[in-house]
Amino acid sequence: MSKSSRRSFIADTGKAAMAGTVLLAVNNHQSKEMKNVFVHHVYFWLKNAGNAEDLGKLLAGLKKLSAVTTIKQFHIGKPADTNRGVIDTSYAVSWLALFDNGADQASYQTDPIHLKFVEECSSLWNKVIVYDSVDS
Amino acid sequence: MSKSSRRSFIADTGKAAMAGTVLLAVNNHQSKEMKNVFVHHVYFWLKNAGNAEDLGKLLAGLKKLSAVTTIKQFHIGKPADTNRGVIDTSYAVSWLALFDNGADQASYQTDPIHLKFVEECSSLWNKVIVYDSVDS
Repeated sequence: MSKSSRRSFIADTGKAAMAGTVLLAVNNHQSKEMKNVFVHHVYFWLKNAGNAEDLGKLLAGLKKLSAVTTIKQFHIGKPADTNRGVIDTSYAVSWLALFDNGADQASYQTDPIHLKFVEECSSLWNKVIVYDSVDS
Repeated sequence: MSKSSRRSFIADTGKAAMAGTVLLAVNNHQSKEMKNVFVHHVYFWLKNAGNAEDLGKLLAGLKKLSAVTTIKQFHIGKPADTNRGVIDTSYAVSWLALFDNGADQASYQTDPIHLKFVEECSSLWNKVIVYDSVDS
């Protein structure tokens, strides 16, 4: 390799490395976005608010519910300790279930495991709010 | 290998394969559960409900907001076409952001990118509800 072609090679390598860095940064950012997902988020308020036994029953029921095969990912949560005015911290349990699409979520609604959950646990809550979201 | 030891080897291999299947099934199920996560879910109602331009501005603002580095994953959504009584479909935009922990979410609240989002977009909505959840 001549001196000038080596210099050119180094310059090109530098450009390629820089381009690689930019691409990686773009990809890292984009991979954080969840796409082609059906977000099913349910908040439960217990009939006996603050009752540990009923809370335990509901959590155990959701654990069993999570076995529904069309659920791609799920999270069973409780209110965090954040407390600004716009934050609703009054619910007892958060149930977040991610599906590949609306058809999978629809089949979950009629899945025997889901029907059993409703049968066994619906007496525990007196309020439930569901938010279903798809890609905007 | 003698006939009996071969038989025993086959039996053991069968048991190991079955045990492997069971373990895999358990792991597959458990890996669906999101753990050690701070779930920040915000629902926005537009001041000019149904206004496409304002909706576009809010969506563009959230895209920019998603650059905050402590955000692990995010989803920008709109109401799905589900419509049972317990489902709230009245919001315009769903903003789901996942963090590793509460400290990361707290730092997001004061991140310059977040402050800029609030400055540029808060005039677009007249109602916002936030649900922050951690592992139950």
